[in-house]
Amino acid sequence: MDAEIIAVGSEMLTPQKIDTNSLYLTEQLNELGVEVVQKSIIGDDRSRLAGEIGAALKRTGIVILSGGLGPTEDDVTRDASALALGRGQTFRQEIWDEIGARFARMNRKMAENNKRQAYLIDGAEALPNDRGTAPGQWIEQDGRILFLLPGPPKELKAMFERQILPRLKERLPALVIRTRHFRVAGMGESDLDQQIAPVYTKYANPVTTILAGAGDIHVHLRARCHTAEEAECLLTEVATPIEKILGDRIYSHGGESLEEVIGEILTSTGRTMSVAESCTGGMVAERVTSVPGSSKYFRGGFLTYTDEVKTQLLGVSKDLLAAEGAVSEAAAREMAIGARKVLNTTFALSVTGFAGPDGGTEANPVGTVYIGLASDGTCDVRRVQFIGDRERIRMLASQSALDLLRRKL
Amino acid sequence: MDAEIIAVGSEMLTPQKIDTNSLYLTEQLNELGVEVVQKSIIGDDRSRLAGEIGAALKRTGIVILSGGLGPTEDDVTRDASALALGRGQTFRQEIWDEIGARFARMNRKMAENNKRQAYLIDGAEALPNDRGTAPGQWIEQDGRILFLLPGPPKELKAMFERQILPRLKERLPALVIRTRHFRVAGMGESDLDQQIAPVYTKYANPVTTILAGAGDIHVHLRARCHTAEEAECLLTEVATPIEKILGDRIYSHGGESLEEVIGEILTSTGRTMSVAESCTGGMVAERVTSVPGSSKYFRGGFLTYTDEVKTQLLGVSKDLLAAEGAVSEAAAREMAIGARKVLNTTFALSVTGFAGPDGGTEANPVGTVYIGLASDGTCDVRRVQFIGDRERIRMLASQSALDLLRRKL
Repeated sequence: MDAEIIAVGSEMLTPQKIDTNSLYLTEQLNELGVEVVQKSIIGDDRSRLAGEIGAALKRTGIVILSGGLGPTEDDVTRDASALALGRGQTFRQEIWDEIGARFARMNRKMAENNKRQAYLIDGAEALPNDRGTAPGQWIEQDGRILFLLPGPPKELKAMFERQILPRLKERLPALVIRTRHFRVAGMGESDLDQQIAPVYTKYANPVTTILAGAGDIHVHLRARCHTAEEAECLLTEVATPIEKILGDRIYSHGGESLEEVIGEILTSTGRTMSVAESCTGGMVAERVTSVPGSSKYFRGGFLTYTDEVKTQLLGVSKDLLAAEGAVSEAAAREMAIGARKVLNTTFALSVTGFAGPDGGTEANPVGTVYIGLASDGTCDVRRVQFIGDRERIRMLASQSALDLLRRKL
Repeated sequence: MDAEIIAVGSEMLTPQKIDTNSLYLTEQLNELGVEVVQKSIIGDDRSRLAGEIGAALKRTGIVILSGGLGPTEDDVTRDASALALGRGQTFRQEIWDEIGARFARMNRKMAENNKRQAYLIDGAEALPNDRGTAPGQWIEQDGRILFLLPGPPKELKAMFERQILPRLKERLPALVIRTRHFRVAGMGESDLDQQIAPVYTKYANPVTTILAGAGDIHVHLRARCHTAEEAECLLTEVATPIEKILGDRIYSHGGESLEEVIGEILTSTGRTMSVAESCTGGMVAERVTSVPGSSKYFRGGFLTYTDEVKTQLLGVSKDLLAAEGAVSEAAAREMAIGARKVLNTTFALSVTGFAGPDGGTEANPVGTVYIGLASDGTCDVRRVQFIGDRERIRMLASQSALDLLRRKL
């Protein structure tokens, strides 16, 4: 069965607010094998909300409302739901007594408008709220399920776990979800898709999703089956040819970041690394050290932004810089070799390039980056050419540098 | 006129992903006086999406679609829109030529499936995309406006600013919007709010919004009036007492980042800086060098992750490290003094601390950071104590370091 989530509240239609309840609900529902197929946010507008609830009940098996159950005129979820369902509402003394008891426990005076919260949609089941005053409601109609949850995340979560989860489990077939998550460096999204689409488009289950960031593509596979074995078997059926096509461009088979993968290999093999960064200005090291425990393999590095500093700290020859420039294969090579020597590490990565918006030459325009990787006895240098703004070029350069090291490892 | 935003993409219906484009779009639309009345997220499901677009066009004046314009089978926004509008699509050679030219500039091979992106809904205007391959589309029908934007935030923002904004302005009544934007370091959000709420809550216009990131608070004032003079006058009325209360904790009066403010002062006074980073692992330098033109004042720096490297590169005394530890006032002092001396800069910033999750001592638990600032003849050291995960502690430490330098300047 599929689900749809409708968050209610005008404040969530401002530029500052996001609806985080739906992320929690999605996670919980996915674990039950329920897919979330649509999410909406609607302001405190009774008729618009009623329209959307009505439409949702026509197209989706489970409809979840969050928010708008408070005591004020702005809280329209109960009314809109009743309207959409074509049902009335009845004042329930027992709910009212409970709200009163809660206020008494908190030594607070109850406002008359709290009475609104004691109305139950006809035929609904009231869901007790032990973290707040607004009770939830559970309604079934024509094989569809609709439930109303309070907006504050603590109240919503407690009510979902204690009231909704047991009810849903009773009504849903036991389905198991299993996933695979690959991360790929060194290719573009459409190139990747063209290569693997012939495989994954043959399967509706598992569902394949492709997500792309700067130089980093995520491929998610998600299988929903009756047993874990069946799900794993289906996943392997799709994952195996994908892994074969993408080969060593897959840097992670479990969702770890490039810096985490590098960290694991360096830690387990007792090797160390250092960096010498020019145009990335610390981004490579920042990423490497974002991993807890990176002090085991990252010894340190150099940020050499000027030619003078490249010579002073890394021993890059002045003549070389004068002849070839700081953005050159030779400079990248000497930077990496220099950093490795001074810091006595197994590997050293260097990055030098033109991140823009100014700078660049005819031979090496903005976006040109040289990446060096020094190791025992050798130094590989790679020239890459990126398009984008300063931030994107720096990000892609750091990604390429880390991927060069990963391939070496 | 009201607007409705529909974000397209199955990945945004997972527990991990949120739709941030709609926050940007809402901000832009609000400035034009357009209210966002509903937001939806729909997966890569042609018929569901077509249904929602059709419903949205019946109830709302402006309907905005983001995402789903890519080259793959999963990209259903064009098809669903055509379906909802009851229109066909036509292959446009000129769009195809432009996509081809873009691939040629990037020296990349164009995949055949990119052809999908060259189809235009009949009667639509194509919106050029100078940051990506997918063109947008603008369609008017029965007094309603529908437009299709690409999903990647950079592409969406550029297209909105260059293509959508001028078209909307032509069609909407003229109201003048003027804003002020302060950025504040060194205080918490609720502390700040408590101090300035007595001022801003007296005014419905300008609207005051407070947004907080790690160690960085934005205060936005937005006035909507018939004339610019009226708006500026209202803004000054509210901004003057706020500026008086916050004093030099305001580091930016125009929205610039801390690293941009520092860059401007260093550039205009011809002074230079360097860094010596331990726990932040390059984050301070990465932020400093994210500013175009930073090579004018940033000479370089040291990433000294181990004790040995602190001694080797910065001359931090071994005895001191043994006696007081690498996370100490004395170590921060010697690191800053060492970096300044070796790189011969006007200022040097040092950062050493425990970012966690492991490490820390009883006297200096996880979250303790020492920040040093060496300048001519002196070195200030500040001890700060943060709460949060590794990423947050590193971010707060880099913010404190840059703010220490800003105050010195």
